Amino acid sequence: MAIQLYDLAAADEDRRFSPNCWRVRMALAHKGLAVRTIPWRFTDKAVIAFSGQGAVPVMVDGERTVVDSWCIAVDLEDRYADRPTLFGCEPARQHALFIKHWVERALNPLALRMIALDIFDSLHERDQAYFRRTREARFGMPLEALVSNREQTKENFQEVLAPLRSYLAEQPFLGGAAPLFGDYIVFGVFQWMRCVSEFRVLAKDDLVYAWRERLLDLYGGLARRALAYAV
Amino acid sequence: MAIQLYDLAAADEDRRFSPNCWRVRMALAHKGLAVRTIPWRFTDKAVIAFSGQGAVPVMVDGERTVVDSWCIAVDLEDRYADRPTLFGCEPARQHALFIKHWVERALNPLALRMIALDIFDSLHERDQAYFRRTREARFGMPLEALVSNREQTKENFQEVLAPLRSYLAEQPFLGGAAPLFGDYIVFGVFQWMRCVSEFRVLAKDDLVYAWRERLLDLYGGLARRALAYAV
Repeated sequence: MAIQLYDLAAADEDRRFSPNCWRVRMALAHKGLAVRTIPWRFTDKAVIAFSGQGAVPVMVDGERTVVDSWCIAVDLEDRYADRPTLFGCEPARQHALFIKHWVERALNPLALRMIALDIFDSLHERDQAYFRRTREARFGMPLEALVSNREQTKENFQEVLAPLRSYLAEQPFLGGAAPLFGDYIVFGVFQWMRCVSEFRVLAKDDLVYAWRERLLDLYGGLARRALAYAV
Repeated sequence: MAIQLYDLAAADEDRRFSPNCWRVRMALAHKGLAVRTIPWRFTDKAVIAFSGQGAVPVMVDGERTVVDSWCIAVDLEDRYADRPTLFGCEPARQHALFIKHWVERALNPLALRMIALDIFDSLHERDQAYFRRTREARFGMPLEALVSNREQTKENFQEVLAPLRSYLAEQPFLGGAAPLFGDYIVFGVFQWMRCVSEFRVLAKDDLVYAWRERLLDLYGGLARRALAYAV
């Protein structure tokens, strides 16, 4: 049986926007593993109660259930060691973990300050109150206030991307000549944004845009074929 | 003959403060290679003209001259492949290159906004005019203005360190259980600051402080024994 992945969905169940689920989708494709995704919504806690927690991605591979995108990548790497590596070696995995922290501390909060209201608008109505309550508690302000100055946030986001941009002047992927899980971690942020928002964050002449294009092309255009906006 | 390294020096030639030279000092110790450092000052361009450019680190290893801290590390890794690895594997080297760009784009500019005047004050008088002219041109303001609000800069610096701090809650070094060149790249920033400035940037209960302590202890306290301030 194919691997199953509980995958965050919007009101339109084909709109799969979770950055962390996208990390896993790309990792599975990288490993050449077939997957059946199961649309899941924020308030479907009961559906994944078997996993012992309440968030996706949740991967079910035969008898095995793994949660958390990082743990899933590590699990795939160890269990499918004969397939293309997601990390390269143990030190590379540690550096990829640093990239994960960079994404989650430096990029994700700014991304949310641009797209939080677009996420809200995309959600199934049964998820909207949950999303508003949890995110407003986290940021200490209404979603509308959070995104109220997104042109300025976009400028800050551009600055925070400076290390990625200057790196990409030297190499096509964070993995070097070919993509690795570190690329997918960063890519998740951009796929998240384009799945829910028409707000254009990257200029077409940006090296980060060109890198994102390369990621969108991978695995037969897996991420490009997803329901998203052409930004 | 031991490897020779042209190493940036302050007025006191024992004060070796260059972040990029520190990367190399740590990398040489990591490889277990003896080095003879040669104090060099910004305006000693003629002394290193043989290297084809005007900045340190410049490493001379027998007949071979290598410039630029990244190129030196790559060179050491390739030529001394039987000694402890600085990177781990090719993908890890690429990720370390991302860490280098993060340091140079996100950390170094803020560090200079805290210590530029301390650097100036530390320099030999024959270097001071050169340093002031080049840095004031780069930042578009007098050194005094650059560091005028360093308490605020320190707060920004703390925020920019958030990914490193949360990573260090999981692992002792960027290399995982043991340090790699990625650690030395980041460490260079902190050693730079403590070599020239009494301004305390890290609180003692900060995970980044504890990590810096581990780096200071390496190789018989190589970096701790250097002429620096106890901050």
